Amino acid sequence: MIECSSMEENREEMLARFIGAQRQFEALLTPLTAEEHRIQPTVEASPPWWSLMHTAWFYSRNILMELGEYLPLDRLYDPLLNSYYHALGPYLDQGLRGKLAEPANNRAYAYRSSVHERMTRLILTATGKELERLAFLLEIAINHEEQHMELFLTEIKRIKAENPVGELRLPYCAPPPFLSATEAVAAEFLPFGGGLYEFGNLEGGWCWDNELAVHSYHLRDFAIMNRLVTNGEYLEFMEDGGYEDFSLWLSSAYDAVIKKGLWRSPLYWEKIDGAWWTWTLSGMKRVEPHEPVCHVSFYEAHAYALWKSRNDAHYRGARLPTEREWELAARASRVPISGNFLESGQYHPSSAAKAVPGVPAQMLGDLWVWTASHYEPYPGYKPLPAGLVEYNSKFMNNQRVLRGGSCATPVGHMRLSYRNFWQALTRFQFTGIRLAMDFDREGTHAG
Amino acid sequence: MIECSSMEENREEMLARFIGAQRQFEALLTPLTAEEHRIQPTVEASPPWWSLMHTAWFYSRNILMELGEYLPLDRLYDPLLNSYYHALGPYLDQGLRGKLAEPANNRAYAYRSSVHERMTRLILTATGKELERLAFLLEIAINHEEQHMELFLTEIKRIKAENPVGELRLPYCAPPPFLSATEAVAAEFLPFGGGLYEFGNLEGGWCWDNELAVHSYHLRDFAIMNRLVTNGEYLEFMEDGGYEDFSLWLSSAYDAVIKKGLWRSPLYWEKIDGAWWTWTLSGMKRVEPHEPVCHVSFYEAHAYALWKSRNDAHYRGARLPTEREWELAARASRVPISGNFLESGQYHPSSAAKAVPGVPAQMLGDLWVWTASHYEPYPGYKPLPAGLVEYNSKFMNNQRVLRGGSCATPVGHMRLSYRNFWQALTRFQFTGIRLAMDFDREGTHAG
Amino acid sequence: MIECSSMEENREEMLARFIGAQRQFEALLTPLTAEEHRIQPTVEASPPWWSLMHTAWFYSRNILMELGEYLPLDRLYDPLLNSYYHALGPYLDQGLRGKLAEPANNRAYAYRSSVHERMTRLILTATGKELERLAFLLEIAINHEEQHMELFLTEIKRIKAENPVGELRLPYCAPPPFLSATEAVAAEFLPFGGGLYEFGNLEGGWCWDNELAVHSYHLRDFAIMNRLVTNGEYLEFMEDGGYEDFSLWLSSAYDAVIKKGLWRSPLYWEKIDGAWWTWTLSGMKRVEPHEPVCHVSFYEAHAYALWKSRNDAHYRGARLPTEREWELAARASRVPISGNFLESGQYHPSSAAKAVPGVPAQMLGDLWVWTASHYEPYPGYKPLPAGLVEYNSKFMNNQRVLRGGSCATPVGHMRLSYRNFWQALTRFQFTGIRLAMDFDREGTHAG
Amino acid sequence: MIECSSMEENREEMLARFIGAQRQFEALLTPLTAEEHRIQPTVEASPPWWSLMHTAWFYSRNILMELGEYLPLDRLYDPLLNSYYHALGPYLDQGLRGKLAEPANNRAYAYRSSVHERMTRLILTATGKELERLAFLLEIAINHEEQHMELFLTEIKRIKAENPVGELRLPYCAPPPFLSATEAVAAEFLPFGGGLYEFGNLEGGWCWDNELAVHSYHLRDFAIMNRLVTNGEYLEFMEDGGYEDFSLWLSSAYDAVIKKGLWRSPLYWEKIDGAWWTWTLSGMKRVEPHEPVCHVSFYEAHAYALWKSRNDAHYRGARLPTEREWELAARASRVPISGNFLESGQYHPSSAAKAVPGVPAQMLGDLWVWTASHYEPYPGYKPLPAGLVEYNSKFMNNQRVLRGGSCATPVGHMRLSYRNFWQALTRFQFTGIRLAMDFDREGTHAG
Repeated sequence: MIECSSMEENREEMLARFIGAQRQFEALLTPLTAEEHRIQPTVEASPPWWSLMHTAWFYSRNILMELGEYLPLDRLYDPLLNSYYHALGPYLDQGLRGKLAEPANNRAYAYRSSVHERMTRLILTATGKELERLAFLLEIAINHEEQHMELFLTEIKRIKAENPVGELRLPYCAPPPFLSATEAVAAEFLPFGGGLYEFGNLEGGWCWDNELAVHSYHLRDFAIMNRLVTNGEYLEFMEDGGYEDFSLWLSSAYDAVIKKGLWRSPLYWEKIDGAWWTWTLSGMKRVEPHEPVCHVSFYEAHAYALWKSRNDAHYRGARLPTEREWELAARASRVPISGNFLESGQYHPSSAAKAVPGVPAQMLGDLWVWTASHYEPYPGYKPLPAGLVEYNSKFMNNQRVLRGGSCATPVGHMRLSYRNFWQALTRFQFTGIRLAMDFDREGTHAG
Repeated sequence: MIECSSMEENREEMLARFIGAQRQFEALLTPLTAEEHRIQPTVEASPPWWSLMHTAWFYSRNILMELGEYLPLDRLYDPLLNSYYHALGPYLDQGLRGKLAEPANNRAYAYRSSVHERMTRLILTATGKELERLAFLLEIAINHEEQHMELFLTEIKRIKAENPVGELRLPYCAPPPFLSATEAVAAEFLPFGGGLYEFGNLEGGWCWDNELAVHSYHLRDFAIMNRLVTNGEYLEFMEDGGYEDFSLWLSSAYDAVIKKGLWRSPLYWEKIDGAWWTWTLSGMKRVEPHEPVCHVSFYEAHAYALWKSRNDAHYRGARLPTEREWELAARASRVPISGNFLESGQYHPSSAAKAVPGVPAQMLGDLWVWTASHYEPYPGYKPLPAGLVEYNSKFMNNQRVLRGGSCATPVGHMRLSYRNFWQALTRFQFTGIRLAMDFDREGTHAG
Repeated sequence: MIECSSMEENREEMLARFIGAQRQFEALLTPLTAEEHRIQPTVEASPPWWSLMHTAWFYSRNILMELGEYLPLDRLYDPLLNSYYHALGPYLDQGLRGKLAEPANNRAYAYRSSVHERMTRLILTATGKELERLAFLLEIAINHEEQHMELFLTEIKRIKAENPVGELRLPYCAPPPFLSATEAVAAEFLPFGGGLYEFGNLEGGWCWDNELAVHSYHLRDFAIMNRLVTNGEYLEFMEDGGYEDFSLWLSSAYDAVIKKGLWRSPLYWEKIDGAWWTWTLSGMKRVEPHEPVCHVSFYEAHAYALWKSRNDAHYRGARLPTEREWELAARASRVPISGNFLESGQYHPSSAAKAVPGVPAQMLGDLWVWTASHYEPYPGYKPLPAGLVEYNSKFMNNQRVLRGGSCATPVGHMRLSYRNFWQALTRFQFTGIRLAMDFDREGTHAG
Repeated sequence: MIECSSMEENREEMLARFIGAQRQFEALLTPLTAEEHRIQPTVEASPPWWSLMHTAWFYSRNILMELGEYLPLDRLYDPLLNSYYHALGPYLDQGLRGKLAEPANNRAYAYRSSVHERMTRLILTATGKELERLAFLLEIAINHEEQHMELFLTEIKRIKAENPVGELRLPYCAPPPFLSATEAVAAEFLPFGGGLYEFGNLEGGWCWDNELAVHSYHLRDFAIMNRLVTNGEYLEFMEDGGYEDFSLWLSSAYDAVIKKGLWRSPLYWEKIDGAWWTWTLSGMKRVEPHEPVCHVSFYEAHAYALWKSRNDAHYRGARLPTEREWELAARASRVPISGNFLESGQYHPSSAAKAVPGVPAQMLGDLWVWTASHYEPYPGYKPLPAGLVEYNSKFMNNQRVLRGGSCATPVGHMRLSYRNFWQALTRFQFTGIRLAMDFDREGTHAG
């Protein structure tokens, strides 16, 4: 991000990138009804009209205001579309987005078009210093839009889930013709040797400020699961009373949701006539034992790990990986940036049907995995400058890092060093579980 | 209501009444955008899609289920459209109506049409006992729909007010071509002699259960204002620090909203460049001193009365009228059931430009007035039977009675004995103030 | 109260009244431990240290400051001891009284002594106008102290109930040697003829502002129960599922405490080994079927009446009495001001073992009964002047009137016209149920 | 802790340790009034009666129940004194401790004596395996009691602060005769070289489970301040608008307390006649510029660091130290376990009047310093066994580590590896600030 060297003053490439991102997001909006554009089911899930304007606003406020054409229209919408940047002026309470009937959908799309047109003109005409600055800001804005693609898919899933199961809860898209595996590969722990490694954006290219500072860190030997934890495995935890056993839960979660019985399964699961079903973007679907368990919070991931480590001799010492263990495992295994990402159009994790021996499957795509790591600045961290200082830095507190991307992440947005973060109670994202453990180098052969 | 004598087994009249009510409500919905149909700004203001289905549901659940055709469609929507009748099965939390994207607007209107068609058929074909029963239930359902016409206008006013003042807050209708008076008649107290009077539905015809039991009640001599309190009068209260003087406020309001500074003017008022403006259904409008003050709570009405009684020698002893004082004054004055009602299309109170001497103006229409009376059953009260027992009776607690109807009430819905009721903190209805006082028969000539 | 004619300028009588009230309250404090002085179990139940200082403060702030000696000591404690009088300066949040370790108990009693001594001196030395003014204020302050005697007994009952049942919940006093009746007289409704009657302080003598305005009011014929409702009768309601039947409950109570299962019996009842026990000031006690049911809210009284009227043919139309029905029944029956009041030292209601035919028993003492009447100003009401204006008037909103006094009320404090008031959810006072009904004059002989 | 090797089966030493800890805590309780024993000002600050019983309960429940004499008395109090151990049975809601008048103070002390006596007997008589087990458990229980000594001092400070400033807020102890320095040494950053170091309980001896796993960790070069941040330095932050500048605050704190203006100075500070005063255990005291700033939350420490790094060229890059940076600095500097601890009887931090060049002052005692580290298990962490598993492990979430001990910590309780932890909003502990920064080895000479 600070590094713009990969962003040549290649005007055409910039334009293509910009138009591509716009189109990709807009394609996701196509199936929405007018009504669905306005619904805010919870404070953290914004209504789609807001997302589509907010992503446009990001260009308007951070680029057009400085370098391009800034219209009365922009000024009108600005206080509604600013999300949380104190530095950029007043903003609407997040929880009030679903209370507004204006700007209506047509005006929302018109605003987007207007920004699009002015951005296109700017990219085509900027020169010299201006173009350099534009390149810097544009990359941030496009990445911001990519984040909102994923967010949008999780929001529309949540919005539709507010409708009662049955005729009134219509799918977002047709079920994918996926030849879903009927079983998952056997679970196995793959060992990796410890030592002093470098972490952060080693691969180069653009990245967020929070990944930037390359730094060395000493890891102990560890091993990591060769795939994600499955529904079948998680059901054993449920059936063994995992949600009722206080000793598995961190204190804050226990008091907030477990003691009161608010959580007894992953989000979106419903027991119908004795069988577990789950809500997906292509409709209700039987919980398949071999698919990865999804929509669990950090606390559920943590409790599952603890339960498994106590109840299965092969998992003695199982725990969540740290974010650096995950990163090392991915890097050492040279996992390619491909897999079940947003572009597959499946919007649901796949089973790990097969795996290359010694190489962890499902590291990228499918589901974000919760790591044990609190979200903290890397040593030497420097936040984005000026108006964007608030983008990441002010949230580095009491959140957990997730790694790997999901079936809702644009593939071009992913990197081995990518750090996602959410509060530990969050369940509406595409989140899953991968276990790790300490590893005794004598006993096994290191990776 | 129990009295159906005025409802002849005149099939045609019934049909006309039914169709008329349906059309009247639907006409009110015409100006809505698709987006506005879905917004629920506060728990008590439902989104329009729900109101238009709920009023249809009332026919479906209370009439078609028993006497007509009840379809899978009805069963599907029933738990969403039941408002609060435990006796009629489960219902959605009131605050969740604005969270649903389904039934979408087109499905909402289709449901309404379906009910309409089946009701029409039923009215045309019912015979004998069935027709009698139908007549009884239909009248209740139509009156229910009329209540929702008023409610709808106050809800859409509230919905639009959620948008920020300016270009994004669009009026619901064009400003009326009203040659608004430039001043109001001078305030005066009109005396009425006390004694033992009858109250309740003396005029006969259909009425709600809560008006029904005709009973005698002894009133003392009293006098009542010849018009509603104006904005100009209320502004004096505001400018004299009325909202800051603890001694004017009932304890519960003081602690809830006054001490914290949450209320410093009527609802919808905004001070813009030193001048007071107010939101109306035809847009922002200067606060006109001669128009009646509107959108005040019971507490503000009560505080105003107390302030006025202390600060104006002509108002010594001024207070809010009891509901029976209001009823007697209206009845004794033979005020006709006409005035500024919903049908005027103005949706805003008019000034009391002139008044017949000795006759109180603005008794009907313009604004509901808060009375001093808690909402309680009349002696001998019997609630509506069976499934409708909850219609009124369970709310007879800690609410205040309002009388007279407003500029949003269908004129055909009004009666001298009509009892409206809201919690004392309510401000989003068309509510105003009329003062009364005890009256010394020697000093003046009684009415 | 405005009427002081009964308060002769008899200095000795005044002194005796004052000392008597002080001693009576202080005697109630004797059994307290040091610890119990400091506990505030809920916002509305103040810790005893505060009550004993607050009652002294009432003399200090309203009398000594104006007419006597006002010391730095008074000034120091004033903002802690003012309860809710905005007119008398700042005051501590009610809920914080239990957070203070100072003034410690010894300082609290020393303050009380200091006020006592200065008041004594003032009573002995005041002359002329001053004495007249003193007589006026003293009577109010003594009545205030009498109210706090009752309040104290209900507070200490609540405080001790916070300790777990068993060895740690010690009684306040020894069980009374009461030869409790083993059954109650049969329930019967006693008729009273309607008509235009006068209400308020007809008997003369001192009274609160809220009883003062004598006024006429027209009652219909009615009948009232000859005794309080018993535990045995209330248990039938409980066993018949009264707490589970939505149709018996006013909406606000249903949503607040019934739906959630928070209330399933009167306050202080506990089921131990299959039998119902209740907490009393002399310890845990079996729930005796023939004793009056106690510690019920207005809502429970209302639900019971509705249930009984539906399920017992002899109670068709049963409901709570209005406050004026109660007053008329008491006055017409010439019930003497005697019975089971605080002075009996029993602090628990007695059974109605016998009754004079045609005369309602238990009208005074034993338990306050909830009336159907909202607490409202009588016609012509004028609040206490100046600093005491807030004593009653600002609470005339959303509360219900109770009548008759209880086993915790000083007998000298009671009058037929006495109006007590609490919010409908209140249960920690000594409150019970007496039913009334409309009455058909033809069918029976009126009282 | 698991390591008991330092706990010889030396019966006499054990007895001396036990009696010493008991006496040390009881000496702290001596100045309390009866009233102060019962007050719970906030949920997290327990009343002293509870603390003195809870520490006794810890011996009773964890030792006497297994190895000694367990009486009906123990069983009676058990559910009141269990703090939060689900594994040890039911427990009272933490917020209700201040609602109980029983067990009264005398019973509380009697219980303590009874436990003391039985423990003494057990220590004198246990043999063989039993003695070994006793030694293991006793050490934990004594350390638990030591933690409560510190907690008690912060609780009584908070309890007394609830009383209004002035005559009613009495000091806990006499002001110490401390010849407080009139200035602090100049601030300086002391450099330490990075590399792979070991962390955890390297010094050996007993420790908590959370310090135990010795592990290697790679640190970068860093520098740490030679003393704590002073009031004078913090006042500059305040006067520069630090509490008003959103850009200095982590998002969660900004929304919870800064935006609303709830925090504008450290806890216990009050501005009186234009000067800052602070509450101490020996009374109100002027805020001395050279004394360390105390009673700040993690968020204030973090905001101060950010502000300082922006506004002072010598502090460019200043931030809070990580817990391992602090530990390395302390260990490398060979700071002795001495200083201003509880035993000084001062209960207030001292100024850093002088410092050995190159050695950081105030590393131990005076104030705990907030580190940047979230409280997380060390690699290889194993919680305490069985009933004590909940002691630390379930709190390893969303809390920050503090290091170094304070003027309220018993000196014998301190270690270089000691990890204290509190939620980031906590201010009632003795908490202060020490800054660190990255350090460029070329530019300076490493430690």
